[in-house]
Amino acid sequence: MAVPPGVGERDFDTALREFEAAVGEQWVFTSDEDVALYRDAYSVFKGDDEEIVASAAVAPYTVEEVQQVVRTANAYRIPIYPISTGKNLGYGGSAPNLSGSVVLDLKRMNRILDVSERNASALVEPGVSYFDLYRYIQERDLKLWIDCPDPGWGSLIGNAVDHGGGYTQPQFRNHFDAHCGMEVVLPDGDVLRTGMGALPGSETWQQYKFGVGPWIDGLFSQSNYGVVTKMGFWLMPEPDAYLTGTVTVPKHADLIALVDILNFLENTGCVNGMPQLGSPLIGGFFSQPDPDLRALLARGASTEELEDYAAGVGRGYWSCTVKFYGAEKAIAANWEYAQEKFSAIPGAQFEDGELFKFPLSAEQIEEITRQQSSGSRSSTLPEFGVPSLTMFSIGARSETNPTPSAGHVWFSPIIPRTGEAIFEANRVFAEAAGDLGLPVAAFSLPTTYWNRSFIYLFGFPISEDPQVNRRTRAAFERLVRVAAEHGWGEYRTAPAFQDVVLEAYSFNDHALKRFQERLKDAIDPNGIVSAGRYGIWPSHLRGA
Amino acid sequence: MAVPPGVGERDFDTALREFEAAVGEQWVFTSDEDVALYRDAYSVFKGDDEEIVASAAVAPYTVEEVQQVVRTANAYRIPIYPISTGKNLGYGGSAPNLSGSVVLDLKRMNRILDVSERNASALVEPGVSYFDLYRYIQERDLKLWIDCPDPGWGSLIGNAVDHGGGYTQPQFRNHFDAHCGMEVVLPDGDVLRTGMGALPGSETWQQYKFGVGPWIDGLFSQSNYGVVTKMGFWLMPEPDAYLTGTVTVPKHADLIALVDILNFLENTGCVNGMPQLGSPLIGGFFSQPDPDLRALLARGASTEELEDYAAGVGRGYWSCTVKFYGAEKAIAANWEYAQEKFSAIPGAQFEDGELFKFPLSAEQIEEITRQQSSGSRSSTLPEFGVPSLTMFSIGARSETNPTPSAGHVWFSPIIPRTGEAIFEANRVFAEAAGDLGLPVAAFSLPTTYWNRSFIYLFGFPISEDPQVNRRTRAAFERLVRVAAEHGWGEYRTAPAFQDVVLEAYSFNDHALKRFQERLKDAIDPNGIVSAGRYGIWPSHLRGA
Repeated sequence: MAVPPGVGERDFDTALREFEAAVGEQWVFTSDEDVALYRDAYSVFKGDDEEIVASAAVAPYTVEEVQQVVRTANAYRIPIYPISTGKNLGYGGSAPNLSGSVVLDLKRMNRILDVSERNASALVEPGVSYFDLYRYIQERDLKLWIDCPDPGWGSLIGNAVDHGGGYTQPQFRNHFDAHCGMEVVLPDGDVLRTGMGALPGSETWQQYKFGVGPWIDGLFSQSNYGVVTKMGFWLMPEPDAYLTGTVTVPKHADLIALVDILNFLENTGCVNGMPQLGSPLIGGFFSQPDPDLRALLARGASTEELEDYAAGVGRGYWSCTVKFYGAEKAIAANWEYAQEKFSAIPGAQFEDGELFKFPLSAEQIEEITRQQSSGSRSSTLPEFGVPSLTMFSIGARSETNPTPSAGHVWFSPIIPRTGEAIFEANRVFAEAAGDLGLPVAAFSLPTTYWNRSFIYLFGFPISEDPQVNRRTRAAFERLVRVAAEHGWGEYRTAPAFQDVVLEAYSFNDHALKRFQERLKDAIDPNGIVSAGRYGIWPSHLRGA
Repeated sequence: MAVPPGVGERDFDTALREFEAAVGEQWVFTSDEDVALYRDAYSVFKGDDEEIVASAAVAPYTVEEVQQVVRTANAYRIPIYPISTGKNLGYGGSAPNLSGSVVLDLKRMNRILDVSERNASALVEPGVSYFDLYRYIQERDLKLWIDCPDPGWGSLIGNAVDHGGGYTQPQFRNHFDAHCGMEVVLPDGDVLRTGMGALPGSETWQQYKFGVGPWIDGLFSQSNYGVVTKMGFWLMPEPDAYLTGTVTVPKHADLIALVDILNFLENTGCVNGMPQLGSPLIGGFFSQPDPDLRALLARGASTEELEDYAAGVGRGYWSCTVKFYGAEKAIAANWEYAQEKFSAIPGAQFEDGELFKFPLSAEQIEEITRQQSSGSRSSTLPEFGVPSLTMFSIGARSETNPTPSAGHVWFSPIIPRTGEAIFEANRVFAEAAGDLGLPVAAFSLPTTYWNRSFIYLFGFPISEDPQVNRRTRAAFERLVRVAAEHGWGEYRTAPAFQDVVLEAYSFNDHALKRFQERLKDAIDPNGIVSAGRYGIWPSHLRGA
């Protein structure tokens, strides 16, 4: 049996006995086969001795049990690593930052404590997945939608505290922003509630997020300051209708105006679904360029040649699909207005998308799933508030993807929301990735979870060959530095890269990190919770 | 000259000399007449020896000067109290929580560091007022609107960190939520930047708020953990048009459905301006009930009698004005859809409001100002992104208000967003206020800054008579406790009431407050910044 670093075998054994007393013997896992389940299935250390692994796991069922486990961990200085459903694949999964940590597995805490249709809100525990909440809502026929990320088996709390994003209206797509109220077990075992939840008998815990006094919720995101045991979320009432429309533009440089107009439409609330930028030259998710285009790209054809090619095949150079939720007539008028605005770009062409009225029928859901599985760029289930694994599993073996990798790890830098920044990022990342042997496609376009910035999502494949993974790690770290040189930083990353990503956020001799470390020392003096998470190490491991 | 508590005269004198060396002699204020300018003009201690007053003030011009002042304050344990423009009237103005504190007046730091039309964002210093930013934008003819609170002379930063609200679209009305990125001088004089600002050369400081790792921004709102010296804000691009419409409903109990439908319309994004609930029985801001109605109310007429009265005068019982920003045709369709939804209430009647196209002409702005000054309930300047003092000055001497008070103090509890909660709050507050001799009108209706909760805003008058103010203070404190007994807490309050308001947020033996105090001790071990603000006292003053 593995023992956490710095912990004696006898102490560890005593702690495990206390964990058993707290949660029940069957919920403390120490056998190799049980603990192996907490390995990161997408580990970038795959096949390598350096892989970060847990020593044991403990799965409490109640907040009181969490408090007891944390107190024991404090008494024996056991590093613990809370996870929710453990599905943060591509960003580290369920494996800790520090090998030998005990995973605090919260997936048994899967109670849906409140769902209010009038208030369009929910209060849940960490083990509640998007599927769980969806099922609950459907069973009661509530007219509520959930903003889901790609993997529907993920935890609402886990995704929100890791700053995840989704696909419906902008006020719901930023999952941390759309939360309202928390309950947190602190590293000393104390439990607090934030916002209006701090007021006993509060009627507005899920209605007003700040409460009064300093707002501390942000501290418990991407951090290791406590264990979130409850969290409120704002949900989206089922809208009347949904419409999409696509604009294509003919010239390379048109991307600049395309993005500017899109930003105006989103920032004024006209476009209130998640837009999708693309290049019709390339097509859908699995599409490859035509042989002619491939030849042009291979010989570094000029922009004019590519524009001529686009004109010749009649497909346009860039596209943007805009999406609208709301009253049927209003969204038709908004699409009309969007076309008027996009028409400022000479040669802009428009194509109406499908109109959906709600609720969707079972047949419609099936058809959307089918289209999505085929990698088409039409609407996907999360746009309708329906959790799914379809997009997530696109990387897995399927008819359309016969050669899946052993997983992937996301490189996800934030860049400005301009066409110029897309050009620059493509140039910089294609060049760097080419040098490093990483796959970065031509015409890479950023993701648009949030209105105000772009995120690039490059999924680099995990290999069965540890040598390849070693090269991927080195290349990833190099890309992080290249991004930082251009003023771009990652929004989220796997434990393997958290130190190097955080290293770039160095203003004034790492003033932010020094402040965060000071908080860590005050909140968790023994450094037991998630040592190293997002670059924050407890003092006894700092700088090691 | 007053001396801060616990500070020797010699040390204070040395500290003042150091302040002068840091900021220039003319920017350190110690004379009675200068320091008196920092008194709270709306102090609820007016005329009383208990009034909380500063000992001196220091007004730095740069971040480096702020750092120097803070370092000196630390060396000599001088309590300092940062203010921005000092216009937080009704919530404490520019006066500190602890008498004898030195006001750190940041209003000279009034640089507008960046305004981006493409990005619809601004980066400003604490001394920048809504008027300043508006002027800057107008001079450059940028198509940007600012979400303003009532007092246009206030600071964007000051208002946001005190959790203020405004009047345009929901994504801008919560001023702290609409910020993106901060620079903060910590109590030890160190300076940090949050979010993407921590990455040197960042291109997205005003585009992505979280950065990576624990998000600390909330700590610097309603708190005393540092001095905010820069802050980014998202602005609203000038929309195509604006439309309002009013629904009136005939029965007392209709308020429940009215609010539920309103919530649906706001939470789906159909209604995207700030709605206004009212009772046509009462009318506008200065209106008094008709003599007949007054008589009915005085004798405690039944709901049915009041409904009969409303039907008799043909005015409806409750009203809601809904407001729409966006493309002209889309907002017309949204108003049509809203009417369809409100028509579920039998007897609902509708009245179209005025349609505005932008930009407004100077004549339109003048006409709106005139209407607003008269206390009419039609559209006000902040709804058009135009800062103003018109609403704020309604409490002052004017044609329509010949008997102004000596100021007011806001009692502002958050209540659930339901009709039932409005009934209950009216019953509870009218009863309590009646007992306490405070003015709480019949048919009080909450404010709707934010979609998910209601806020009541009761402005209690300040008197020239200290006896009256003493009674007001006692009554205010009693109301806070009455609210807490019903599960309602204040969202913001003046220093005079911060301890009592925070006292109600007591879940688990004040776990939140104990946590906030632990942070205070770690971040500001000498307790020099804003001692007592929002109930957080440094350890040497705690419990005193």
